[in-house]
Amino acid sequence: MGQDPAAIIAASVAELKARVADAAAARFGFALKTTEFPWSCDYYLKTGEMMPADGIAQLRPFDAIYLGAVGWPKTVPDSVSLHGLLLPIRKAFRQYANIRPHRLLKGVEGPLKAGGFDILCIRENTEGEYSGAGGRVHQGTPDEVAVETAIFTRAGVERILRFGFESAMRRRRKLTSVTKSNAQKYSMVFWDEVTDQLAKEYPEVEVTHTHIDAMAAKMVMAPESLDVIVASNLFGDILTDLGAAIQGGLGFAASANICPDRSAPSMFEPVHGSAPDIAGKNIANPIAAIWSVAMMLDHLGEKAAAEAILTAIEAATATGVGTRPGSHSTDAITTAVLTALEA
Amino acid sequence: MGQDPAAIIAASVAELKARVADAAAARFGFALKTTEFPWSCDYYLKTGEMMPADGIAQLRPFDAIYLGAVGWPKTVPDSVSLHGLLLPIRKAFRQYANIRPHRLLKGVEGPLKAGGFDILCIRENTEGEYSGAGGRVHQGTPDEVAVETAIFTRAGVERILRFGFESAMRRRRKLTSVTKSNAQKYSMVFWDEVTDQLAKEYPEVEVTHTHIDAMAAKMVMAPESLDVIVASNLFGDILTDLGAAIQGGLGFAASANICPDRSAPSMFEPVHGSAPDIAGKNIANPIAAIWSVAMMLDHLGEKAAAEAILTAIEAATATGVGTRPGSHSTDAITTAVLTALEA
Ligand SMILES: CC(C)[C@H](C(=O)O)[C@@H](O)C(=O)O
Ligand SMILES: CC(C)[C@H](C(=O)O)[C@@H](O)C(=O)O
Repeated sequence: MGQDPAAIIAASVAELKARVADAAAARFGFALKTTEFPWSCDYYLKTGEMMPADGIAQLRPFDAIYLGAVGWPKTVPDSVSLHGLLLPIRKAFRQYANIRPHRLLKGVEGPLKAGGFDILCIRENTEGEYSGAGGRVHQGTPDEVAVETAIFTRAGVERILRFGFESAMRRRRKLTSVTKSNAQKYSMVFWDEVTDQLAKEYPEVEVTHTHIDAMAAKMVMAPESLDVIVASNLFGDILTDLGAAIQGGLGFAASANICPDRSAPSMFEPVHGSAPDIAGKNIANPIAAIWSVAMMLDHLGEKAAAEAILTAIEAATATGVGTRPGSHSTDAITTAVLTALEA
Repeated sequence: MGQDPAAIIAASVAELKARVADAAAARFGFALKTTEFPWSCDYYLKTGEMMPADGIAQLRPFDAIYLGAVGWPKTVPDSVSLHGLLLPIRKAFRQYANIRPHRLLKGVEGPLKAGGFDILCIRENTEGEYSGAGGRVHQGTPDEVAVETAIFTRAGVERILRFGFESAMRRRRKLTSVTKSNAQKYSMVFWDEVTDQLAKEYPEVEVTHTHIDAMAAKMVMAPESLDVIVASNLFGDILTDLGAAIQGGLGFAASANICPDRSAPSMFEPVHGSAPDIAGKNIANPIAAIWSVAMMLDHLGEKAAAEAILTAIEAATATGVGTRPGSHSTDAITTAVLTALEA
């Protein structure tokens, strides 16, 4: 013990990011200036906080943040570690668009018999069911009641839906708005109304309203029918883990937390957590982390480098590297991608 | 139009239920006394309500309620039809345990490469995220805010978890409690605490805490690792549609809304809705509806009849009847099951 898997992962992910980004930078002739922050559960155990009081201010000047997974539930409850680092960063920097691509990379065998889907999931990232509003009364007694309040603002709902419509316009022009308006008659009926209003501005986009339960089923039964999905914080969270599953597992799921107006840094991270059970064993799949580097470079304007990384990832997976759990070490997969990238 | 697909489905499901239940009753020597209530969206259009003001009182004397799917979103918003019929029945009769079995019936090809799972999903059915508490301010203006409050009581959480532990004791003694306590720090942390307290009373049960996002992924990646799942109203709703998907589709997903102390009637219904798109075409898969009849007879103490129906269903599916969308008509599948049941 005494070692924080989250820190280990963060460190190795940071190293990985450096290696991949440096290789891309060398090939495409740009330079990245990076600073590392050791904020983690380990840091919490030493200081009592997940990041310094001025952590947000320290991060603000950067163009982008790359986050190694965080969490070490054995000693720091997730509710502490995430509310002290990941979630405040998303909120403080108005990273309201959490973007997660789901498709099968070449050579990867997913759990579904079906293949051939290409989904872009856009998750609201700053409010809704994860607003952090609520409370408990009569705590510890038989009369205890806990409430958790989802808060949806028009500003918040409109901007994420607009982001979704704009994304759909750049893709196959199909947008599925996911709610649960048949059972949540305030928040989700509101979301549906805003969707219908915005839809008028985007007549070229084919809009479908789907309930979260039906949507979960559809991701498994007919993923090829989906293009862009827009969903609330919680629903997007669930659907993107499901998206990760159908694309072969969390080892393949990359993500970007975007502040679209660029008034603050955006943040890039694999969807997976710190995976304490396998941390430090050199068996974690680094592809989600590398794909997230590509998303970061794309956001920074280095589109050719981003595409080259994705091509390199698929050059590796197409030959079977990293496509089955345990078949290759973290290092071996990274090396295969780097080799392809430098080629 | 003018025809309510929900009513059509309800009628044909009622007829189906009658045929199957009668056949089982004839074979096992009991009799069912049934009364039909035409409460539907059609009824709403005529009367302005989904059921009469004393609807709950009319239903109370019965031992069980069999519900054909309800909903006709083209003319009655789901938020009206469901809050006027299905949801109030679940709440008024303290049907707090919504039980949904997920396994592949013989001969059915699911969407997953994996097979061989047998999951019992137990969904809290009366409170939580579907409490119906919330509101909207500044409606229709740019400043609009909508809130939806999930309310969890200790009584509500404890009783559903106890139901889960008891079910696990009768099965493989593995219980997965599904929350999202890393992001919802009031309701879900509370749920986790109650789980840990109850776990002490059931030392034989192996308890796992899993977040809803990871759980969605697990249902697709490793369904065979799951036994009993207990989840909140919303999370259970999502997971059971996903469960339906991996078992081949909503046409195979049965459910029971149980009032465990039998102080009020329990309700049985297929998980699927009224499917307006296919209503009346004689192509809907009746297996979920028939399986729900079996669950009802089991609840009424007719265990042999319930088992015989399930055996009859699998006798039909094993030969390919009803296992692929469109391969057989609703009538053909029903007849195949009835023939097997009478054999
Ligand atoms: C760790 C957790 C709080 C986080 C979330 O739910 O947002 C994660 O699941 C994710 O999807 O990024
Ligand atoms: C129709 C809807 C309100 C209902 C629910 O969400 O409870 C349904 O999806 C179900 O799963 O029984």
